[in-house]
Amino acid sequence: MVHAAVVGATGYVGCELLAILARHPFASVVCLMSSGRDGKKAFAIDQVHPKLRGRFSVLCEPLDVEQVSASGCEVVFLATPHETSHAVVPALLASGLRVVDLSGAFRLKDSTAYARWYGFAHHDREALAEAVYGIPELAASAIAKARLVSNPGCYATSVILALAPLLKAGWVDLGAGVIADSKSGASGAGRAPSEKLHFPEVNENLRAYGVFNHRHVPEMLQALDLAERDFTFTPHLLPITRGILSTIYVRLSREREASAVEALFQEFYAAAPLVRVYPAGKLPEIQAVAHTPYADLGFALDTSTGKLILVSALDNLGKGAAGQAVQNLNVMFGFPQETGLL
Amino acid sequence: MVHAAVVGATGYVGCELLAILARHPFASVVCLMSSGRDGKKAFAIDQVHPKLRGRFSVLCEPLDVEQVSASGCEVVFLATPHETSHAVVPALLASGLRVVDLSGAFRLKDSTAYARWYGFAHHDREALAEAVYGIPELAASAIAKARLVSNPGCYATSVILALAPLLKAGWVDLGAGVIADSKSGASGAGRAPSEKLHFPEVNENLRAYGVFNHRHVPEMLQALDLAERDFTFTPHLLPITRGILSTIYVRLSREREASAVEALFQEFYAAAPLVRVYPAGKLPEIQAVAHTPYADLGFALDTSTGKLILVSALDNLGKGAAGQAVQNLNVMFGFPQETGLL
Amino acid sequence: MVHAAVVGATGYVGCELLAILARHPFASVVCLMSSGRDGKKAFAIDQVHPKLRGRFSVLCEPLDVEQVSASGCEVVFLATPHETSHAVVPALLASGLRVVDLSGAFRLKDSTAYARWYGFAHHDREALAEAVYGIPELAASAIAKARLVSNPGCYATSVILALAPLLKAGWVDLGAGVIADSKSGASGAGRAPSEKLHFPEVNENLRAYGVFNHRHVPEMLQALDLAERDFTFTPHLLPITRGILSTIYVRLSREREASAVEALFQEFYAAAPLVRVYPAGKLPEIQAVAHTPYADLGFALDTSTGKLILVSALDNLGKGAAGQAVQNLNVMFGFPQETGLL
Amino acid sequence: MVHAAVVGATGYVGCELLAILARHPFASVVCLMSSGRDGKKAFAIDQVHPKLRGRFSVLCEPLDVEQVSASGCEVVFLATPHETSHAVVPALLASGLRVVDLSGAFRLKDSTAYARWYGFAHHDREALAEAVYGIPELAASAIAKARLVSNPGCYATSVILALAPLLKAGWVDLGAGVIADSKSGASGAGRAPSEKLHFPEVNENLRAYGVFNHRHVPEMLQALDLAERDFTFTPHLLPITRGILSTIYVRLSREREASAVEALFQEFYAAAPLVRVYPAGKLPEIQAVAHTPYADLGFALDTSTGKLILVSALDNLGKGAAGQAVQNLNVMFGFPQETGLL
Repeated sequence: MVHAAVVGATGYVGCELLAILARHPFASVVCLMSSGRDGKKAFAIDQVHPKLRGRFSVLCEPLDVEQVSASGCEVVFLATPHETSHAVVPALLASGLRVVDLSGAFRLKDSTAYARWYGFAHHDREALAEAVYGIPELAASAIAKARLVSNPGCYATSVILALAPLLKAGWVDLGAGVIADSKSGASGAGRAPSEKLHFPEVNENLRAYGVFNHRHVPEMLQALDLAERDFTFTPHLLPITRGILSTIYVRLSREREASAVEALFQEFYAAAPLVRVYPAGKLPEIQAVAHTPYADLGFALDTSTGKLILVSALDNLGKGAAGQAVQNLNVMFGFPQETGLL
Repeated sequence: MVHAAVVGATGYVGCELLAILARHPFASVVCLMSSGRDGKKAFAIDQVHPKLRGRFSVLCEPLDVEQVSASGCEVVFLATPHETSHAVVPALLASGLRVVDLSGAFRLKDSTAYARWYGFAHHDREALAEAVYGIPELAASAIAKARLVSNPGCYATSVILALAPLLKAGWVDLGAGVIADSKSGASGAGRAPSEKLHFPEVNENLRAYGVFNHRHVPEMLQALDLAERDFTFTPHLLPITRGILSTIYVRLSREREASAVEALFQEFYAAAPLVRVYPAGKLPEIQAVAHTPYADLGFALDTSTGKLILVSALDNLGKGAAGQAVQNLNVMFGFPQETGLL
Repeated sequence: MVHAAVVGATGYVGCELLAILARHPFASVVCLMSSGRDGKKAFAIDQVHPKLRGRFSVLCEPLDVEQVSASGCEVVFLATPHETSHAVVPALLASGLRVVDLSGAFRLKDSTAYARWYGFAHHDREALAEAVYGIPELAASAIAKARLVSNPGCYATSVILALAPLLKAGWVDLGAGVIADSKSGASGAGRAPSEKLHFPEVNENLRAYGVFNHRHVPEMLQALDLAERDFTFTPHLLPITRGILSTIYVRLSREREASAVEALFQEFYAAAPLVRVYPAGKLPEIQAVAHTPYADLGFALDTSTGKLILVSALDNLGKGAAGQAVQNLNVMFGFPQETGLL
Repeated sequence: MVHAAVVGATGYVGCELLAILARHPFASVVCLMSSGRDGKKAFAIDQVHPKLRGRFSVLCEPLDVEQVSASGCEVVFLATPHETSHAVVPALLASGLRVVDLSGAFRLKDSTAYARWYGFAHHDREALAEAVYGIPELAASAIAKARLVSNPGCYATSVILALAPLLKAGWVDLGAGVIADSKSGASGAGRAPSEKLHFPEVNENLRAYGVFNHRHVPEMLQALDLAERDFTFTPHLLPITRGILSTIYVRLSREREASAVEALFQEFYAAAPLVRVYPAGKLPEIQAVAHTPYADLGFALDTSTGKLILVSALDNLGKGAAGQAVQNLNVMFGFPQETGLL
């Protein structure tokens, strides 16, 4: 049994982590902490997540790194803002714990990029160098050995899983540009109230945001080895709670049959229990993945022109965050990837 | 042409007022003010209400009572918090303006009731005495002469319009209790962000709130001459933007045919252009009234037991707030009630 | 390992049953059938439920009672229309199978009541006499021995669980009437397209329906031993997919403290792992139970008048249908009630 | 006063047409017909559109071309399936009426294209030749004289208005491809129930459909003079009722400042009262246009690479259908374009 701590337990990702860990056969939560509700004493977690009523007896306490270590856990999930993760990771690693960080604090290898994308000076090049970008389908062996796994962004996971097979095979005409038009449910923006996320502002609406400057862009470029000028990413806010659908436009570098594209994806993900590849022409939709740990991938190809449309669907709290974090835990501790997730 | 000022223009009710007044043939908006965005200079109203882009050239300014008077308006709509309305009404009246207040500040005749229901000490008994509770279907002649019209609460309008014909006719067995189970869209709770109104907290959800202590109860009791012990009101928050549906349960004091009930309603509202009475057994729904100024009323009667279920539907921003405010303006200035509303 | 057949696998309840059974440690699905897609050959279930992609290799076949028996199953879930259940139950029982029927076909003890409530002549008094109305919190020992369990309606479960403790204790003033105002998500109405359930007709809407004549009324009266004249039930269609919230109004027959009411509920459900009782004044909401097997119960009491408002929340596909069906399976086969459900 | 007939009054577009015409100062509806509810006698239109209760006394009758002519109308709106429009337009024109057809039956100049895109053999080349594609911002003088105006598709209007200024100015690098990723509310799919549009299938979901073969593609190509190989269009079904947002990706053919792009749009639409151009970097959203007749246009430009993202928002029932149809009526009869629409 792996003992785990969840820091940042009061947000949506924290809630999802707890819901998954509650049914994980080989993991148990021994420590709950919250970084955002300062001054609060320990409280029952169902006070902020009524859904979890009756599931956890351990109380949620204010963040205290020493107490995390003292809790007897072996692994810590950080569902915290990137500033918090940046601040606490060194001490956690130093105390011998393994860490899965769900913030962006350790996703970029280039420490200087944080200024531009996060408005924030990164001071921990050592941890950046050590951190493994945690997409198990692409980096399982590094994750297995990692002390620090940086759990990818939800949009990034959605786009990277769809493009990786084609880009790694060199099948894409990069000069024609790669465009990812993504649409996400509102839980991806977190639980802090704001006018932008006020119910009547999101309901019966759709809006694009973060155009040309979304934080998940640099991790996509890094993971896919793409140049910024060849890649365009536009996120949109959907009036739903959970799920991301990315519609991705590329041109193939030479003529190929749809069956060849399908075979490429099938082979690439043959050993991946949480990626489901659809037959050519059949496209994933959000409902098929909401409340699941899966990423579903499909495509439509216009053979004569080489125009290829990829559609990628996942649950931003599942494969896009907490589900993938537990998948990483499974890889780190030698369990089958899907343990506790299905 | 009536010149109007709208104070509290940045909220949802303010937006709806402006949208209605923009198409009113005999009213024009000469002054826009905001009480809640302190420190801001004057700004174009479409910065906070993109829907109004291109409709108003007058800028929205910070609240300043003297400037309201100086704007040349004859009537002021206050879509402000009750504390603000309470503070500014005396000066507005003193400067000769007529006021339609959409807050709760002047709805209750008993000044001492404000402590219990609003947690607030009311100091203006004179204005309370003068204020006319503005449901035009029930008080048109008083509204026509009023200097201060207190625009009713959205829930209150929904419940009062449904019950008034029966209660005034003495057809209800009060001892059996009167129960109003109301469900409202989220715009009724205003535009200030909060965790309770954060999109993922409202979406795919329903919750009751304000049980036994909602602020609209005392105005319902007052308007319907009901004792608190005989009346129960439970509001619920619906995952929609606009609309209230109230399901109201009463027992008739003696056996009556459905046709008699229908006739009672038809006669009571025969001269009311904005109340639509449905035939027995056909029930209103929110979609029929959203984005309209109507209140729709219907019922189902179990003749043998006298159990009567009333269903009342209106748009909380329409007949429940801004629509009724403009209807009051129409009555105050001698226009047909529905002017500018259809 | 219990081998189960699911008949009616293509509807929403069928999908939920399969999702639950896929993770049940002691049950496995050996037969999938569909009654509604006539003429179709066997097909992969993920063609109609993309969410289940990769979870089931057994194909879904047209309904054939003999083949159910031949499949090697011990228990059959019928997620079929009541006419179909009525038709196939005798043969299933005769072949030695145990049955959990999720339709209304065997819920009422009085066979003559079917004409009024279901517009349908019931011919199987023997099975009606034998059938056990399957609310495990109320009838676990009968369920454990039953050959035929009649799984309750979603609204009925919601209302019965809330009222049973009070009514069985004799704490309610029945003469004052018992009113249940329920609101349900649209999945409760099934998967067959109709104008009433067309997306734009449900979205941003709320409507009451089935007033004074909903089919779940007689099973509520039967389970709660209530007279029709004392009970009023109004269902409403919510613009959400999953969840029911019932707001229930009663008067206590004599003055009681809120703590006494809370204690009554706590004791009544002390051994019930899937009913969560809330402290006095804290009310359940749909989000806390959606995608869970729980029924959550709460209340608010006006001590001085004895007016008591009960709020009951459950997922209509969970505790309201498939979740309760699996809970019944657990009781029938001697597993802990919550097995496979949490 | 222009007398108008509305054929196809029972659908969503028909309802919106009636709601607009009810407040049009110079038009009145003298004839209502329905093509889809065969066998029905005349009925009050509020039986199918409760929202219109009390607004129209003229009954809705089964479609009968002779009776249209006999109604005294001068202009006919056809909100009918394309087969119906194709069948009745010749007789309507022959009887001297002017027609605004909201179906696709007369949108394409090439009669042979109907086989591919509509699966339908078009037999009326004469009417196709005569028909004017009705985007008033692009073809006002032809519309003014037209007997037959073919009202554009909702997606097509959204995409054409955004691209026309740039393409007509020759500013786009066509070789790099033009990609329109559009998202529409469900009312755009009409009122006929189907599994795809069943509430629980649309709610909390997003899906792409009609990839590489949507019917609105050929009218976009025709209006914009684009080659199919250079253009990609992907529609998505949003879980909302009203509104389309199109995110459109192009590369500029040479470096330009954002201010130049903004100026191009401002000039192009300087005389267009129903197109609102946003300042560079500010993007339209659906809420700003829902329930309005506007199309809102905005963009973001990455100057260094020439990557330009256009965002276009309109209400699919407003500027995308009924609003534009009334705008066409206004042009045809010499009223200001926005008459009755604001």
